[in-house]
Amino acid sequence: MLGPNRYGKAEVRVVRVTRGAEHELRDWNVSIALSGDLSATHLSGANDEVLPTDTQKNTVYAFAKRLGGVEPEVFALALAAHFVDTAEAITRARVTVDEYGWSRLGQHSFARRGGAVRTCCVVGGLRDLVLLNTTDSEFRGFARDEYTTLAEAGDRVLATSVEAQWRMRGPDPDWAASFAAARQAMVDAFVGTYSYSLQQTLYAMGSAVLAAVPAVCEVRLALPNKHHFLVDLSPFGMTNDDEVYFAADRPYGLIEGTVLADDAPEPGLAWS
Amino acid sequence: MLGPNRYGKAEVRVVRVTRGAEHELRDWNVSIALSGDLSATHLSGANDEVLPTDTQKNTVYAFAKRLGGVEPEVFALALAAHFVDTAEAITRARVTVDEYGWSRLGQHSFARRGGAVRTCCVVGGLRDLVLLNTTDSEFRGFARDEYTTLAEAGDRVLATSVEAQWRMRGPDPDWAASFAAARQAMVDAFVGTYSYSLQQTLYAMGSAVLAAVPAVCEVRLALPNKHHFLVDLSPFGMTNDDEVYFAADRPYGLIEGTVLADDAPEPGLAWS
Amino acid sequence: MLGPNRYGKAEVRVVRVTRGAEHELRDWNVSIALSGDLSATHLSGANDEVLPTDTQKNTVYAFAKRLGGVEPEVFALALAAHFVDTAEAITRARVTVDEYGWSRLGQHSFARRGGAVRTCCVVGGLRDLVLLNTTDSEFRGFARDEYTTLAEAGDRVLATSVEAQWRMRGPDPDWAASFAAARQAMVDAFVGTYSYSLQQTLYAMGSAVLAAVPAVCEVRLALPNKHHFLVDLSPFGMTNDDEVYFAADRPYGLIEGTVLADDAPEPGLAWS
Amino acid sequence: MLGPNRYGKAEVRVVRVTRGAEHELRDWNVSIALSGDLSATHLSGANDEVLPTDTQKNTVYAFAKRLGGVEPEVFALALAAHFVDTAEAITRARVTVDEYGWSRLGQHSFARRGGAVRTCCVVGGLRDLVLLNTTDSEFRGFARDEYTTLAEAGDRVLATSVEAQWRMRGPDPDWAASFAAARQAMVDAFVGTYSYSLQQTLYAMGSAVLAAVPAVCEVRLALPNKHHFLVDLSPFGMTNDDEVYFAADRPYGLIEGTVLADDAPEPGLAWS
Repeated sequence: MLGPNRYGKAEVRVVRVTRGAEHELRDWNVSIALSGDLSATHLSGANDEVLPTDTQKNTVYAFAKRLGGVEPEVFALALAAHFVDTAEAITRARVTVDEYGWSRLGQHSFARRGGAVRTCCVVGGLRDLVLLNTTDSEFRGFARDEYTTLAEAGDRVLATSVEAQWRMRGPDPDWAASFAAARQAMVDAFVGTYSYSLQQTLYAMGSAVLAAVPAVCEVRLALPNKHHFLVDLSPFGMTNDDEVYFAADRPYGLIEGTVLADDAPEPGLAWS
Repeated sequence: MLGPNRYGKAEVRVVRVTRGAEHELRDWNVSIALSGDLSATHLSGANDEVLPTDTQKNTVYAFAKRLGGVEPEVFALALAAHFVDTAEAITRARVTVDEYGWSRLGQHSFARRGGAVRTCCVVGGLRDLVLLNTTDSEFRGFARDEYTTLAEAGDRVLATSVEAQWRMRGPDPDWAASFAAARQAMVDAFVGTYSYSLQQTLYAMGSAVLAAVPAVCEVRLALPNKHHFLVDLSPFGMTNDDEVYFAADRPYGLIEGTVLADDAPEPGLAWS
Repeated sequence: MLGPNRYGKAEVRVVRVTRGAEHELRDWNVSIALSGDLSATHLSGANDEVLPTDTQKNTVYAFAKRLGGVEPEVFALALAAHFVDTAEAITRARVTVDEYGWSRLGQHSFARRGGAVRTCCVVGGLRDLVLLNTTDSEFRGFARDEYTTLAEAGDRVLATSVEAQWRMRGPDPDWAASFAAARQAMVDAFVGTYSYSLQQTLYAMGSAVLAAVPAVCEVRLALPNKHHFLVDLSPFGMTNDDEVYFAADRPYGLIEGTVLADDAPEPGLAWS
Repeated sequence: MLGPNRYGKAEVRVVRVTRGAEHELRDWNVSIALSGDLSATHLSGANDEVLPTDTQKNTVYAFAKRLGGVEPEVFALALAAHFVDTAEAITRARVTVDEYGWSRLGQHSFARRGGAVRTCCVVGGLRDLVLLNTTDSEFRGFARDEYTTLAEAGDRVLATSVEAQWRMRGPDPDWAASFAAARQAMVDAFVGTYSYSLQQTLYAMGSAVLAAVPAVCEVRLALPNKHHFLVDLSPFGMTNDDEVYFAADRPYGLIEGTVLADDAPEPGLAWS
């Protein structure tokens, strides 16, 4: 019995230049997943209803030309609507856009920003925003069992790589302003929160987005705890006054949570 | 309002040697996610109910010692049960184990196999099993629209990197035998199916697992279409008789689907 | 017969916080390679002359404590001198430091910058500085043979990821100022050069560093040509007026070159 | 002043199928670097002597067609000779081929082997061959200084990822047989050597290649010490009888060395 299924072209790397006195640049990685009644191709290999993933790739390019340098969320929604409207068997389209940031160097010159990548997929978001506080973080009073060896920490480095997604209320939000405000609210909350646990910081960051951007009704956050362990310098006759750390790769703590507005509408298929 | 949340230690790299006349090796990457009533730490930073992720790491090591070289699924279930049974606030534990394969070279010597990684997380699975057919694959009769430029292919290379997960019926399946049989069934189906579409191959692979391993009731597959494009050699006065290909990185087609036994029980939380 | 050899600890991830009214942060990845008369351990496994790589790691931490937040080049030179001075068998030490950049968010809060990574290893350098010009680049008049199909390009996107290393003249240069000036000179040359070939741009960038930083006597550059191919929109009845590009991953052109001051002294072992 | 320079196309991913009763497969990643008198394009952007990297890519495909499924070293040498013979300004060509291994599943079906990648570039080699001994390795009697905290190890896990290159004497060696014999000799030496230091194992592996393959006159090895640290289980009332290890990522020891035949001829430009 065939269960849920979908297909599409992943990672179409398209760069859109808008030429004027100053050139504008959009640098995207676009992925598409289409679903609907596609049982024929699964069961018998009949492809009448299968719009090739190559065609989907072409459509990304054509829409990049037609729509110009719009916000990535606008692009994603227009592309998704196109497939649902025109491909007979397709009843649902999921379009994901990662936008890589570039800083302007001149009228037609740019430097890749690195750092946070803006994401969207019906919901908005970002990932790879790496933040660090050198103090104002502790971790104490935690549960203990027979396997617990961790010492309480009264002052620790707190570092994370923010992955966030936010769901909007209305049909036509200001995506660019929402993105900027949500990003800033998360940064401010991270900087301004005296942290007793990373969960608490997570909740503060999610709440700050809801407060700063009323059009957002739900925030999902995944925060790896990028451990910075104090090095024991005592064998060398030195005191480590919270100065020298080993930045560990693996394992790491991973804290995931959702913060909702009290009046958040049902998500429908937004997250799936 | 706090929504769904969880936390845990990710990517604990543990190697278990069982010493006898011949040494046995298990090489795992273990990730844990715990959920339950953890609102206090989110809302006020009170950590009474928070078992540190450092403790979870320790528990992985202690259980590796205690349980010995068991199948990774047995390890995952025992570890999950431990946290739910002993940590007061925790009502749900999700434990994922990736097992890296090693080939024996001698009584205590091994070579890393590379290739497929065995995975498990309540459900069994594998990823990174890369397969390729040099013929017996075509793609024709597909839907066309104004953006379609793809030519029909009567004979193409079909290559994919299999990511599969399977759900078991009973409480205590033979994990090792199921894994071996499921893997072999997928390989045989890939090799033996004349393919009209990758969806059809996906369905054949999923069906083959259900037929070969009655304890499996559901199979989820994600198959990237690793495109191999024929190079146009005509500018150099050569004919490319389906011999020289460019192996493309991005973009790629991505085909995802589920195959269910007719009498599959409800999944509950198996997939979430 | 034993030939050249060396050993050491690679990728020691150390973070140094200097605490004052404002916290300062240095985030480094340090690698060490020691060489000298180490034939005994190779030929017979006698380790009397082998300073453990674990000790080398410890020394990184101890020197981070002792030296404080110095420039990475100063740290590398001090560490190298330590091993040569104190480890009897060691006659040569190569220390490499990659410095990850952080932007200040507050008195003790930082965001990882991404983008260019500062490197050093006796010589200074950087990598992962990604630059792009949307115009002022052409590629014409190139050599042709029977395998050439490339069309001449009168206006193309030029993008690269700069990897650069520069060798200093004197014993005690101002590393921080040199780094900043070299980086800026390369950016300015990339932006300001009308490019007829990426080689020409490379030479312009290297020359600009020599002109801007007299203490630099040699610049080595490796510039991948990150191809941006114009998408053919004509099948869809559209004209692509240099606006929609496919950002290719592989293959890519790779241009490497050296620019030397006329009076550059011999490099000795600087590059090996 | 322009110093040494070169350019070329990197990472051309070509797959060559030879069709017969059984299909044969060669899967390669080819990189080319050309040098010669290329000062014009650097100094003035005149491209008369610049064979486009696009043409080099085309040539890879055309030679794959023409030469058929030859050994990768034969392919590399033929391609290098072509550029030096036909491109006027080019006096030196460096061609690198990585060959990915596939296991046969059927007449025209294959599974990617993972594990070791065969490499070549005038010299032969391999990388990513991961080996592990669970015993017969110790590390004692090493040098100590004020920063040494490492305990002596009488029985430790020894694991490494072999990167090896070997230089051949004659003009026309049997590349396939040499590769197989060199690989086997290194594996056997790793398995059969009771190790007092990784340097000693390195030397044994290099010597074994020289003994097993008389056509090889020089072996270069880079062996990361993939540390497996014993976990301290005593806080949990358990003894760790050399059974439970933490597989660390970073930092790692890195041991590099060369083993030469007594009568090895001068390398010329083989390594540069």
